[in-house]
Amino acid sequence: MDEPHIAIIGCGAGGGTAAQFARKTNRKTQITIFEQSPYAQYSRCGLPYVISGAIPSVDHLLEFSKEWFAKEHITVNLETTVESIDLASRTITSVHHGQRAQHPFDRLILATGSRPMIPPIQGIPKEGPLPANVFCLRSIDDAVLIQHALQRSKRACIVGAGFIGLELAEALTEKGLTVTLVEALPNILASSLDNDLSEQVAATFPKSVTILLNHFVTAITPNPQGITVRIKDRASNAESNFETDVVVLATGTRPEVRLAKALGCVIGPTGGIAVDNHAQTSIPEVYAVGDCTEYKDFVTGEPVCIGLGTIAVRQGITAGINAAGGQYEMPPGVLLSRTSTFFGTQIAAVGPLLSPQYPRALVHGKIIGSSLPTYFPGGTPITMKVVAEEESGRIVAAQAMGSNASQRVNVFACAILQETTVDALQKLETTYAPPIAPILDVITLACDVVQLKRLRKKRER
Amino acid sequence: MDEPHIAIIGCGAGGGTAAQFARKTNRKTQITIFEQSPYAQYSRCGLPYVISGAIPSVDHLLEFSKEWFAKEHITVNLETTVESIDLASRTITSVHHGQRAQHPFDRLILATGSRPMIPPIQGIPKEGPLPANVFCLRSIDDAVLIQHALQRSKRACIVGAGFIGLELAEALTEKGLTVTLVEALPNILASSLDNDLSEQVAATFPKSVTILLNHFVTAITPNPQGITVRIKDRASNAESNFETDVVVLATGTRPEVRLAKALGCVIGPTGGIAVDNHAQTSIPEVYAVGDCTEYKDFVTGEPVCIGLGTIAVRQGITAGINAAGGQYEMPPGVLLSRTSTFFGTQIAAVGPLLSPQYPRALVHGKIIGSSLPTYFPGGTPITMKVVAEEESGRIVAAQAMGSNASQRVNVFACAILQETTVDALQKLETTYAPPIAPILDVITLACDVVQLKRLRKKRER
Repeated sequence: MDEPHIAIIGCGAGGGTAAQFARKTNRKTQITIFEQSPYAQYSRCGLPYVISGAIPSVDHLLEFSKEWFAKEHITVNLETTVESIDLASRTITSVHHGQRAQHPFDRLILATGSRPMIPPIQGIPKEGPLPANVFCLRSIDDAVLIQHALQRSKRACIVGAGFIGLELAEALTEKGLTVTLVEALPNILASSLDNDLSEQVAATFPKSVTILLNHFVTAITPNPQGITVRIKDRASNAESNFETDVVVLATGTRPEVRLAKALGCVIGPTGGIAVDNHAQTSIPEVYAVGDCTEYKDFVTGEPVCIGLGTIAVRQGITAGINAAGGQYEMPPGVLLSRTSTFFGTQIAAVGPLLSPQYPRALVHGKIIGSSLPTYFPGGTPITMKVVAEEESGRIVAAQAMGSNASQRVNVFACAILQETTVDALQKLETTYAPPIAPILDVITLACDVVQLKRLRKKRER
Repeated sequence: MDEPHIAIIGCGAGGGTAAQFARKTNRKTQITIFEQSPYAQYSRCGLPYVISGAIPSVDHLLEFSKEWFAKEHITVNLETTVESIDLASRTITSVHHGQRAQHPFDRLILATGSRPMIPPIQGIPKEGPLPANVFCLRSIDDAVLIQHALQRSKRACIVGAGFIGLELAEALTEKGLTVTLVEALPNILASSLDNDLSEQVAATFPKSVTILLNHFVTAITPNPQGITVRIKDRASNAESNFETDVVVLATGTRPEVRLAKALGCVIGPTGGIAVDNHAQTSIPEVYAVGDCTEYKDFVTGEPVCIGLGTIAVRQGITAGINAAGGQYEMPPGVLLSRTSTFFGTQIAAVGPLLSPQYPRALVHGKIIGSSLPTYFPGGTPITMKVVAEEESGRIVAAQAMGSNASQRVNVFACAILQETTVDALQKLETTYAPPIAPILDVITLACDVVQLKRLRKKRER
C-alpha cells in the first residue's frame, strides 16, 4: 500500500505540530505544508514580548524553519495561498507569486487559523489594509510595523482588553508610552475571568494606563499631530475624543473557514470548523486544528471556538497522528487552561465562565491567601477562586491571581479532567515547605470555602 | 447530652490543629491540651530558617499562642507532662513543675510527635543530654542553642542528609560556616528522591559543603580547639578523622508512643501508632495524629510512618472533627507530597520511592526541560520524572527539580489521588504563556516519555 500524502494548509502552531506528529507516526508518508506568509512555524503568542523588548527580535520567535522541516522531509511552501481544493480528484490548487500549481493529496489538515475581527469604526475599512498608524497584532509583520511606529509615538490607544490587549498595554508601557485601553465590555479580561478577579487585576495597573470600560471606539481621524479617537459611553451614549499616536485593534479574531466551507465541512454555531475528538471534520480524512476550529467545552459540552495555542498544538498532535495512520484521541472536550502576566501579576484560569444558563446550581468559593506561611517573610497575596456544582461537588472551573497562579491552576485542570469533587481535592496533600508554600495552600483553602458553602446550603434545604 | 470533653496530648501541628477543628465542629465541647514544652503551636519546619536568618527569630514561628487558644476556649497546659492515662476511669495524670494533677476526659487525641533518633556514636549517649556543641534540631530550644553555638563556630558537621540536614547545611553556609555532611546511605535525600535526582541535586551544592556519602560517624571527641569527628567508610571500613566546631544530628526521628503503648493502642510495623482513615487508633474514641502515627501509603497500601507536617495537619483536622462529633475521612492513604529548596534549587516529590518489590511492573520517564519556551529569555532547567504502572498506566509517583517543582508536583499529587493514567495526564491542557511556561510543559513531556516507553514495551511483548 502506498503511504498517504498529507497536505496541511497553514504552518502555525496547529499545522506545524500536525506535520511533526504525522512524521513521527509515519516515516514514509509525504507531507506538504502550504503557508500564505513568508514564515514557517513561529510563536504568535510571543509577539507582544518582541514589542516590549523581552524577546530581542521577531527572528527569535521562529520555532521551526522551512529548513528544519526539510530535514524531516516535510515540504513547506511559503508565500503560497491555497486557492481551492477539489475533494473529488483530491487536488489542491495553490498560488505562489502569481503562479498557479496543482498538488495531489490523500488526507488534508486545515490549519487556516483566524483573522482579526475589525470592529465597525469610522475611518477603518472592514476589509483591506489598515490606515496609517492603526495596527492589529496577529503576525510577525504586524509586530515589525508596530515596532517601527513606536519610534515616533508617545501615546497609544489599544482597543480591546483581552489577553493580547493587556499584554500589549504592558509592552507599550515598558517602551515608555502612555496607554489608553478602550473596552466595550464592563470589565477587562471579560472572556477569561469573573468580574471580581478582573477588577482585582485592573487595580494593579500603573497610572500610565487608562482603562475606559463600557466604551466603544466609534471613529478615528488622522490629524497632523496624530490620531483623534472618538469614543462612546455605552451607558449614557455620550461621545468624547482623545488624542493618540498609534491605535492597536485587539478586538479578537474570527475563524478563517473559507476553504472548509467550500469543501462542505460543517461549520459550527461559533463560526469554527466543527471537529471531533480525532480532530476530524465532518468529512472523513479531512482534519482541522487550531483557531479555525470549534470543539466541545469539557464541562458544559457546548461548542467553543478554539483560540488558544495550547489547544491548537494538542489538536495538531491528534490530527497529525491520525492522518498518518495512527490512533490518538483528544479528551472529550477542552478545559481552556489559560494564563498570562500583566505588570508583574500572574493570572490563570481553567474551565468555562459559567453563565446562569448552566443547568446545575453552582457554588463559588474565593480566598485571598499568601504564597508562603505567615511566619515566613516575603509571601505575596494569591487570590484563588473555585467553582463546583452544588449537588455533586464536581469542580468545574478555577481562577487565580498572584504567585504561581498558572501551576496552581494546572492542579485544578487535572481535577476537572478527572471529574474530581471539591471534597476530594480539599483533602489533597499539597507540597509544603516554609520558603515555598504554606501547609494549607490556597488550593486547599478555596476548596474549603466551597465545601463549607455546600454544607450550609445542604442544611438550609 | 453533655458535650464530650476532648483531651489532646501534644500541641504541635497535629495536636493544635485537632483542637482548632474540634472547636470549629463543636462550640460547646471542652478541649484541653497538654504540652510538655513551654511553647504552644509553632512551626517546627521553620527552625532551619531561623538559623539561616531568613526568619528573624524563633518568636516568629509561634503560629497560635496559649492566649489565642484561650480565646477559642481551648485550655493549653504548657510545661505539663502526661504521666499516665487511665482509660477505665477516663482520667489523665499530669505533672506540671513537679505537681501531679488528675483530669477527666471523654475522648483522647494523641499528638505526642517523635523523638530524634540518636545513632550509635561513641561520645554521644543514647539517652539524656547531648555533649557540649552537639545538637539535634527538633525544637525551638534546639534552634536557640545552635544559634548561640554558631557565634563561636566556623565549621559544622551535619550527620544525615535528609531534608532537615540539607536545610541546615544551607542555613549554616549562609552564616558563613564550612559544612561537612556525613550520610550513611549512598546518596543525599535517599528517602525522598531516586538516586539520579539526588545526584543532580548534590551537584548544585557550593564548594563550602563537603558531602561524605556511605560514611558513618563512629565517634566524636572534644578537644581544646573543637571536636574531632571519626568517620568510617561503609565500603572499605577505612576510618578517618576531621575537625569541626559543632555537630548537628539530623538522623531522623522515631515515633513517641509510650502513652499509646500503655493504653494498649496497636503499634504498627513502622513503630508508629496505627490509625485509620478517621485518625482513630485501635481503641474507640482514642485518636492519634502526626509524627507519632503510621497510616497507609496511598499507592502501595503499605504502612508508612508519618513524618510530614502536611499530613499531621490533615490528620489533626480529621481527628478534631471526629472527636467533636463530626464526620471526616482521610483519603485511603497518604501521597507523601514533599518539597524543599537547597541553595536556590527547588525539589519536590510525591508518591513512594518504589522498590523492586512493588507487585506490578513500572515505567519511569524523565525529561530535562525548560521553565519557559526556548525563544523566551530567562528559562531555567526543570527535571521532571514520572513513574507509572506499565500495564495499567496508572501514575504512582513523580519527582521534580527546578522552577516551580512544588506546584508541578501538586498536579501529579492530584493525578495520583484520582488514579489518573499517564495517557490521560499526557493530554492535560497545561497553562501556557511565553513568560510563564512552555506550550508543552515538563508535566506533559515527562508523561510523553513514559507513554512512549509503555508503547514500546507493549510492542516488544
